[in-house]
Amino acid sequence: MSSVPMHAQIREIIRRRVLDGSYAPHSQMPSETQMIAAFGVSRITIRQALGDLQKEGLIFKVPGKGSFVAKPKAFQSLSRLQGFGEAMGPAGYETFSQVLATREQPADEQVARHLGLRPGAAVVQIQRLRYLNREPISVDMSWFPAAIGRRLLTADLPTRDIFVILENDHGLHLTHADVQIEAISADETLARHLATTEGAPLLRIERLTYVNEQPVDYEHLYYRGDAFQYRLRIDRT
Amino acid sequence: MSSVPMHAQIREIIRRRVLDGSYAPHSQMPSETQMIAAFGVSRITIRQALGDLQKEGLIFKVPGKGSFVAKPKAFQSLSRLQGFGEAMGPAGYETFSQVLATREQPADEQVARHLGLRPGAAVVQIQRLRYLNREPISVDMSWFPAAIGRRLLTADLPTRDIFVILENDHGLHLTHADVQIEAISADETLARHLATTEGAPLLRIERLTYVNEQPVDYEHLYYRGDAFQYRLRIDRT
Repeated sequence: MSSVPMHAQIREIIRRRVLDGSYAPHSQMPSETQMIAAFGVSRITIRQALGDLQKEGLIFKVPGKGSFVAKPKAFQSLSRLQGFGEAMGPAGYETFSQVLATREQPADEQVARHLGLRPGAAVVQIQRLRYLNREPISVDMSWFPAAIGRRLLTADLPTRDIFVILENDHGLHLTHADVQIEAISADETLARHLATTEGAPLLRIERLTYVNEQPVDYEHLYYRGDAFQYRLRIDRT
Repeated sequence: MSSVPMHAQIREIIRRRVLDGSYAPHSQMPSETQMIAAFGVSRITIRQALGDLQKEGLIFKVPGKGSFVAKPKAFQSLSRLQGFGEAMGPAGYETFSQVLATREQPADEQVARHLGLRPGAAVVQIQRLRYLNREPISVDMSWFPAAIGRRLLTADLPTRDIFVILENDHGLHLTHADVQIEAISADETLARHLATTEGAPLLRIERLTYVNEQPVDYEHLYYRGDAFQYRLRIDRT
């Protein structure tokens, strides 16, 4: 027998179904009576579970109509450096990357400076469109020193995080990243990829990932503002 | 004929080029003589425009060498919980708060849940417009349990951070905050306060600050996307 109260168990089952899209955003939830039959529990237990999820903003009630699934904003914790797939998978999300472009090119001044290379040195650029539960959520532009980047081109980029490939396949032990976070407006290209409108607010991330003091991965990430947020805990001292 | 003084027009053109990266960070600006020729204005006008931008920290002068582009956006580190004034002062910025409104009111469901109160319990709301080097940079809406909030109303809110007042005047030892970061569009009210356009991208922060396990300060912060960013270092393990 579980020590977790029944309404909390039901709540977690429903939460998982909302997060993995089984209960689609904006769709109507099953009625209380249907849930009582489906879960074999009392009305008060169902109401407690739904009440908790309502307070969290995962679902909302329409008087006289029932409960509906809110469009939850996915969030990623900033307390630990993780790839998007690594972070979102355990939370019950399905992630996928569409490779938009890969190219080897001379580093411009900005890319060279961040990667510690001379301008014009060879770098590999990888552009991906990332999906969360089959909806586009971010455009990721990543630059790598050529020796590292070339080896990524044959990897399974659609289903694996680059961080995981670098560590598990290439034996690079990533240590940390310097991150900048800001808000910008979507230009026409980003808007088209992200299935949103030009001028829509995006969360823009600039991230430089290191192996010890050696920068290995310089990125510009553009997340849909209406679908994603970062969370973290900050200590005062 | 425009009513905006010539030096202000030039200043805004140059500012735009710095902010959009046309003049790259740390690169040398064109010389005064080149700018005189390019803009067709007097040396004193160019000097006024550059002087304004220098005061804002967007560019800096190296004696005998000319002007260089400084960091284009103000940034605050997320590695430690700090008020805006505490964080920006040591970086050489001048900060100031205009109090837009203060009121005591019954907590709505969202505020009550975050502060651990019953809906309808008395809370104090403080709305401030924060300035960085005399430019509006954020609208901060803060809610406090009434016993804490009432004592803030007589404090020097224009020049002091609320975190500092809570700690130094009230003996509350802040321990940490839970923070959410997202991108939104400015509505008409926020745009007016922030001297930007409706729809402009804003960085929205939801922050709940604690003394141990007791929430004491619940906030919604709205930063101009074109003027501000967060930075932090994240470790892989």
